[in-house]
Amino acid sequence: MDISWNERLSDGAHRITSSAIRDLLKLTEQPAVISFAGGLPAPECFPTAELTAAAERVLTVHPMAALQYGPTEGYAPLRSFLAARMAALNMPVLTEQVLITSGSQQALDLLGKLFLDTSALVVVEEPTYLGALQAWRPYGPRFVTLPLDDEGLDVIALARLLATGAQPRFLYLVSCFQNPTGVTLSPARRHALIELAARYALPIVEDDPYGDLSYGGERPEPLAALDIALHGELRHVIYLSSFSKIVAPGLRIGWVAAPAGLSRKLAHAKQGLDLHTGSLAQATACEACHAGLLNEHVPRIRATYRTRRDTLLAALEHQMPPGVRWTHPAGGMFIWLTLPEQVDATELLYTALEQQVAFVPGATFHANGGGTATLRLNFSSTAPERITEGVRRLGQAMRSRL
Amino acid sequence: MDISWNERLSDGAHRITSSAIRDLLKLTEQPAVISFAGGLPAPECFPTAELTAAAERVLTVHPMAALQYGPTEGYAPLRSFLAARMAALNMPVLTEQVLITSGSQQALDLLGKLFLDTSALVVVEEPTYLGALQAWRPYGPRFVTLPLDDEGLDVIALARLLATGAQPRFLYLVSCFQNPTGVTLSPARRHALIELAARYALPIVEDDPYGDLSYGGERPEPLAALDIALHGELRHVIYLSSFSKIVAPGLRIGWVAAPAGLSRKLAHAKQGLDLHTGSLAQATACEACHAGLLNEHVPRIRATYRTRRDTLLAALEHQMPPGVRWTHPAGGMFIWLTLPEQVDATELLYTALEQQVAFVPGATFHANGGGTATLRLNFSSTAPERITEGVRRLGQAMRSRL
Repeated sequence: MDISWNERLSDGAHRITSSAIRDLLKLTEQPAVISFAGGLPAPECFPTAELTAAAERVLTVHPMAALQYGPTEGYAPLRSFLAARMAALNMPVLTEQVLITSGSQQALDLLGKLFLDTSALVVVEEPTYLGALQAWRPYGPRFVTLPLDDEGLDVIALARLLATGAQPRFLYLVSCFQNPTGVTLSPARRHALIELAARYALPIVEDDPYGDLSYGGERPEPLAALDIALHGELRHVIYLSSFSKIVAPGLRIGWVAAPAGLSRKLAHAKQGLDLHTGSLAQATACEACHAGLLNEHVPRIRATYRTRRDTLLAALEHQMPPGVRWTHPAGGMFIWLTLPEQVDATELLYTALEQQVAFVPGATFHANGGGTATLRLNFSSTAPERITEGVRRLGQAMRSRL
Repeated sequence: MDISWNERLSDGAHRITSSAIRDLLKLTEQPAVISFAGGLPAPECFPTAELTAAAERVLTVHPMAALQYGPTEGYAPLRSFLAARMAALNMPVLTEQVLITSGSQQALDLLGKLFLDTSALVVVEEPTYLGALQAWRPYGPRFVTLPLDDEGLDVIALARLLATGAQPRFLYLVSCFQNPTGVTLSPARRHALIELAARYALPIVEDDPYGDLSYGGERPEPLAALDIALHGELRHVIYLSSFSKIVAPGLRIGWVAAPAGLSRKLAHAKQGLDLHTGSLAQATACEACHAGLLNEHVPRIRATYRTRRDTLLAALEHQMPPGVRWTHPAGGMFIWLTLPEQVDATELLYTALEQQVAFVPGATFHANGGGTATLRLNFSSTAPERITEGVRRLGQAMRSRL
């Protein structure tokens, strides 16, 4: 008897859906297309020489650390390095609180596994990071969305929600140079948010992969830093970050710093997922970091990405038809466009692809629908001259639709 | 307000339990202890030079493939290599059917996500691989255990179970040199099993990380090969394997070859877990494989492990008190001991640790309890002279308990 696989799937599996947009964009990865669609770091900036030297050294000097099974919690020297780095950013945590994950994405799945049941409430920004929705949908939660503006999440809307007695499992946000909008939560709202978290015992999942990519001005204090400053230790914030944007995503190394009461549970859950994160990648990253990689590399990519952001903003200024608005991010990798209400960004994408330019329609980033007249542009992985040309094509596509 | 993390956890998280044994064994990782407890490959055999050369080459020649985000399905050249390798083992599958995972462990978690709901039935061997139980327990299935003997799974017991109308989501087994017992499913039972799978439309998850570690004699046809031979394509078997035992676990590279109707769903599910498996590790492994690593390396570790298995068997013959029985595996990494009924292997472990020798009590590998008078010995990661001394200590510990 043949097996009808679809009939055999779990409830969770039925909630996993393919993204039609992703499939569409996959078909257009030809060099002729100028793509603002990805979320990729600039490959020409990868610190290849530093990582090659580091990989050679670990394989020669510490082959065991690079090749053997490793602890589920992560490679101890890397955990120490990250704890020290967090301390330098006003987030003193114990090494034991740091768990290495296979990219931040795995941390999101882990948190889903630990906290989510069918119909559990999760508060997210509108729009929010697509990967978080993908990680959590199989667990069947209900998403409550809160709007954001140029100062980030609308904290007053959150206060109203919590005042109704709602008990979300957690609030998820990208606190700095958000994906997809590029906006950053303002210092005043950060303080208000941490107070709300303390008052209502609300766990906050702070995703911060872009915080180091600031193109001028100070990096705001992470929510984790405020939590520690107020309570002497991480108490309400589960802090996520990653090497994907500041070193290379192919390493697949992220980390989560969690309140002490949660760290062991995270490690136990990770055991069932993959035993541990790749040792070769962890040991290589650690070796490179000890050799000073971040201090040299992060300023380099900041300079490159700043130019690209400026180029994109200038091109938008020149090419966008009236009625189109966009964010002005102080860092990160993305700019968010809001189109005149009647424009459907998914339909616009078809026209754009005819013009050999691509982006991600904003609806994808909306947990509960909506956002049809919005779109995301990535600027980190496209050279300035192609950015300018791409926006020219995008403007053309828009004008043919307006 | 403080957060009581334990009260916030999901139903699934409450099912994740720490293994007291694992914690105990962690405390005894001192060099003085002779440990038969792990499941580690011999680190002195790691193909360090080959992997260093491969890592250098990929970082120099294909830095993008090693450092950028990669496809969720895996690095295309590695998928092709594995499809060709499977074809050479009488398992012709399309490259599209091969999904690279972060170790086989991730494949187990993926299958849990795809197939398991609370109270869903899963058939496993008794005893079975601990990591599979850890991966699936959070999903809340009911495990039905079937006994095994020197010819592997009791297929008649399975036939009886299926004849009652039971509809398991799948049967899981380690078909060759099983973990934890070392036994191999006999050719006759393989044929009977594939016929049952076809008759009852029963999915079989065939975990085969040890099949290449054969110490004499032919490797039996994988169930996947029989499935393909009978049906022209993979239809009932989901085949899992890994580089962890034949190259190095620190790479964290496993793969799953699935029936065509299931491959896309697996990839969609993996997207939420970690986006993709580490590119550096995949590209390095692929480069090393293309340079002929497996052809040279697998015979080397086979020779080393064969000696260790023979040493362990000889030492058991000399040192075990009457009433102790053990398996005689033709390959793999483990030997399984059955003690006189009244002996509790967990209590024995305390005595053994006093004698500076360690093992894993067999109860851990039993999905529904039992197995208190059994234990698992690993021989791959201990040098022959230490194996002999370790078994001498183990014999002493046993005699003090009998």
